[in-house]
Amino acid sequence: MFASRKVPILIRGTGLLGASIGLGLSAAGHQVWLSDPSPTAERIAEDIGAGEIWGRQGGQGEEDGLIVVVASPPEVTAHEVAEALLNHQGLVVDIASVKAEIIRQLLRRAEDDADPLTREHLRRYVGTHPMAGREQSGPVAARGELFTSMPWVICPAVDPGTGEQITDEGFVELATWLARTLGASVHRMDAVKHDESVALISHLPQIAASLVASRLQDAPANALVLSGNGLRDVTRIAASDPNLWVQILSANASPVVEILYGLREDVERLIGTLEDPEARGGQADIAQLIAEGNSGVARVPGKHGAPPQSFAPLTVIVDDRPGQIAAVLNDVAEVGVNVEDLRMEHSAGHQVGMVELSVLPGRRDELAEALTDMGWKVVLS
Amino acid sequence: MFASRKVPILIRGTGLLGASIGLGLSAAGHQVWLSDPSPTAERIAEDIGAGEIWGRQGGQGEEDGLIVVVASPPEVTAHEVAEALLNHQGLVVDIASVKAEIIRQLLRRAEDDADPLTREHLRRYVGTHPMAGREQSGPVAARGELFTSMPWVICPAVDPGTGEQITDEGFVELATWLARTLGASVHRMDAVKHDESVALISHLPQIAASLVASRLQDAPANALVLSGNGLRDVTRIAASDPNLWVQILSANASPVVEILYGLREDVERLIGTLEDPEARGGQADIAQLIAEGNSGVARVPGKHGAPPQSFAPLTVIVDDRPGQIAAVLNDVAEVGVNVEDLRMEHSAGHQVGMVELSVLPGRRDELAEALTDMGWKVVLS
Repeated sequence: MFASRKVPILIRGTGLLGASIGLGLSAAGHQVWLSDPSPTAERIAEDIGAGEIWGRQGGQGEEDGLIVVVASPPEVTAHEVAEALLNHQGLVVDIASVKAEIIRQLLRRAEDDADPLTREHLRRYVGTHPMAGREQSGPVAARGELFTSMPWVICPAVDPGTGEQITDEGFVELATWLARTLGASVHRMDAVKHDESVALISHLPQIAASLVASRLQDAPANALVLSGNGLRDVTRIAASDPNLWVQILSANASPVVEILYGLREDVERLIGTLEDPEARGGQADIAQLIAEGNSGVARVPGKHGAPPQSFAPLTVIVDDRPGQIAAVLNDVAEVGVNVEDLRMEHSAGHQVGMVELSVLPGRRDELAEALTDMGWKVVLS
Repeated sequence: MFASRKVPILIRGTGLLGASIGLGLSAAGHQVWLSDPSPTAERIAEDIGAGEIWGRQGGQGEEDGLIVVVASPPEVTAHEVAEALLNHQGLVVDIASVKAEIIRQLLRRAEDDADPLTREHLRRYVGTHPMAGREQSGPVAARGELFTSMPWVICPAVDPGTGEQITDEGFVELATWLARTLGASVHRMDAVKHDESVALISHLPQIAASLVASRLQDAPANALVLSGNGLRDVTRIAASDPNLWVQILSANASPVVEILYGLREDVERLIGTLEDPEARGGQADIAQLIAEGNSGVARVPGKHGAPPQSFAPLTVIVDDRPGQIAAVLNDVAEVGVNVEDLRMEHSAGHQVGMVELSVLPGRRDELAEALTDMGWKVVLS
């Protein structure tokens, strides 16, 4: 519906996400304006092709139908959204990763007669959350494809008292168009439900990864040399930005704390069992914790939203030199089987690699046989 | 030193690890005998080529220089080791993942005059821990290459009172030969230090993964659909065997509990901060936790024991159809650059994939340029 015309978009905040949105929308042919309190961040974003700096060349001439994307740090998002609603006439979206608190702040201002922001303004506000990111930050790490295939949650403003939707449906559609233009997969959701969901599937894993990794700070080097993929996987996201996570966890404190109560209880129970195996529950408590983990992990969806464990693995042993993995995958392609996932097994010491391929279960045996015939060392796993 | 002759080895316990050891040693040309309380497990191990069933064809004729590998469940390992030391004359190794408790149990028996086991027997005992495993278990999942490039810890028996080594050095060398024959990278370590190390780098990540995954059991489906790689990575090892982990955590209770005290304290502090941001420490506490995680994860070694973050990433956008990844890696091989790691980015919805390649930093820009010239959509990240 909007795809054929050139839409003017102002992005306020040109960090990793703002600059990536700019890159993606510019690549799609739209007119992107950039603005950031840091002249350096603004300049870098412009240099990498995310858009043009706002105001310098009289960008205000493009006001008609201007969409404002607020991509500021979470703690100033509500303020920036209000400014944008007061200063412009079109859709205003934000992309902060916690949503209910922003709507609460905006409604509080709208109810204050001394504040120029009114409920009428909020008809043009859509809270959104692109579920994409990286360990790196800043515009240098930006890329237009960051959102490709990733979930992008859309939360229209809703009155928490009456449950009535405040955002006009037309603006919800426009926000949806924006996310889809960037290749994302749109999920419409209530802001409170969204916040509870990300507390569980994003904030809890971040906390767990940081808690485990923080204990490694003073670990002896000869302990760390024994590290395997388990530790590497569990701690990977611990390399995240402390300042950003202070804001995210603070903004979503209440759902996060609810989950941490449960975590604390489980840790207590485990300590109790390990200190006194004969106590009530005893070893059965440990088995139950691990079994509950089995059930939980079985519910985590895989690639493209596929049900977990729907792919069958097989492992190929390769030398660790240029071209070996390519050669394997070449032969896989020749057999005509699609690789759904690929893992390299890491380890200390030797120079042999193991490549675990995941394929549709119905194609696995055929592929293993064909690769073996082609001379590969294949292990069904 | 031993490689030229055919060594007879008896493996007691033909689960995943026992059968994998049998496969690897058989492939290396040694005479492997198998024994397991479960006739089915024993038969499967024989069928997949891990060795011959012990006793059926008069295997006892091979007694001279027989090595016994005890690959039983952790809770019966000390008993099985004692039996093997009493019934055979050569090296006895076990492969349980917790070591100090087994030596303590054996020494207790050796000090008991009514017990036939003596300190003399323990000169032939070497505790070992191959740091390899998989989410699957049982002999069906076995593979001879399971230990290739993986750490294998060797813990000679030491008297905890005097610090004096009980195991004869010749038997330590023989155990080292065994691990190296299977392609592993040998690390000699004190049993107590080993147990403290695995509590941190293996048992803590397992507990954290299970704790996070267990909270997903009752999560709404529309929360799980937002899952990203962060959650997938943190929870992957939660798919582990509850019975095995009860034994591992119980056997290593004291070092694990020490670590859980610290974890509990951090969770307490985080809850306190989130409940009352104005309290002492406040948001600085959250930032500190995440920053400590940054420092910790920076110490986790990468592939082949390389220092972490020593490789540079670049991302290639591909269609999700057979042959695309192969085609990329082909072209990478043509440029002559070795791929140190490869990640596919998973997500729900679309059919476009992103392949993140890690290469030596000095080769990255050259590779990116060459791939772009070859027509690939490359993003430096």
